[in-house]
Amino acid sequence: MFNLDPRLAGDTLLVGELPLCRVLLMNDAQYPWLILVPRLADVVELTDLSDTDYQRYCTESRAVAKAMLEVYPDAKLNIAALGNVVSQLHIHHVARFNNDAAWPGPIWGKHPAIPYDPEQANALVKQFQTQLSIKEGS
Amino acid sequence: MFNLDPRLAGDTLLVGELPLCRVLLMNDAQYPWLILVPRLADVVELTDLSDTDYQRYCTESRAVAKAMLEVYPDAKLNIAALGNVVSQLHIHHVARFNNDAAWPGPIWGKHPAIPYDPEQANALVKQFQTQLSIKEGS
Repeated sequence: MFNLDPRLAGDTLLVGELPLCRVLLMNDAQYPWLILVPRLADVVELTDLSDTDYQRYCTESRAVAKAMLEVYPDAKLNIAALGNVVSQLHIHHVARFNNDAAWPGPIWGKHPAIPYDPEQANALVKQFQTQLSIKEGS
Repeated sequence: MFNLDPRLAGDTLLVGELPLCRVLLMNDAQYPWLILVPRLADVVELTDLSDTDYQRYCTESRAVAKAMLEVYPDAKLNIAALGNVVSQLHIHHVARFNNDAAWPGPIWGKHPAIPYDPEQANALVKQFQTQLSIKEGS
């Protein structure tokens, strides 16, 4: 059974569900940062996905990347499956800018998160729901 | 026309060619680290690839990830498209270990590279050529 890792749950806001993946917004106002988590039990590596689920993941990652570039046309995307700290398979999709807090280095482990103010978070969640054709509350 | 970025060329050793991507071994003995570079001009983001080329990339990334886990069954893979410094699209595939120099942080920008001794590099290149069914000198 799929259970979201409690650290991922605690650090993020729910955007919604794609056919394979849960879409989360990292609650860090320093970088627009979505995380895809396949809703499967016991997956750690992308290679743990079946061929079919891997294809689904690739399709959903592409949709999320395109959505981020729609919202942030000037961003450089960073897409990464790391999992050195939280082992549950989750794939980061981050919009980077040459004036962001960690540029040009990677964001992970660099600066403590700065939570969004709730209205800002809500607006961003709605924007990504629209871009990804995710129904509210899905 | 495809030209490999000179920084990527200078930091890596050639493993060989897959149908879409050039496979490079980062010349850093601290981490087993392969890089896939689609042999296309002017691609920066994964979303710049056509649907067909994106599918090819996904297939090749999976093959490389599986090859790395064959060679290093105890590794945690880090797979990442960053490109904040070198903009030419290139995707890192790194085998991580909980006793490596940067664990559990990301490797990028952490420690200066420690080049392989040539025999060790050659053996690793051959091992990945075998795993990926790449002919020598391809």
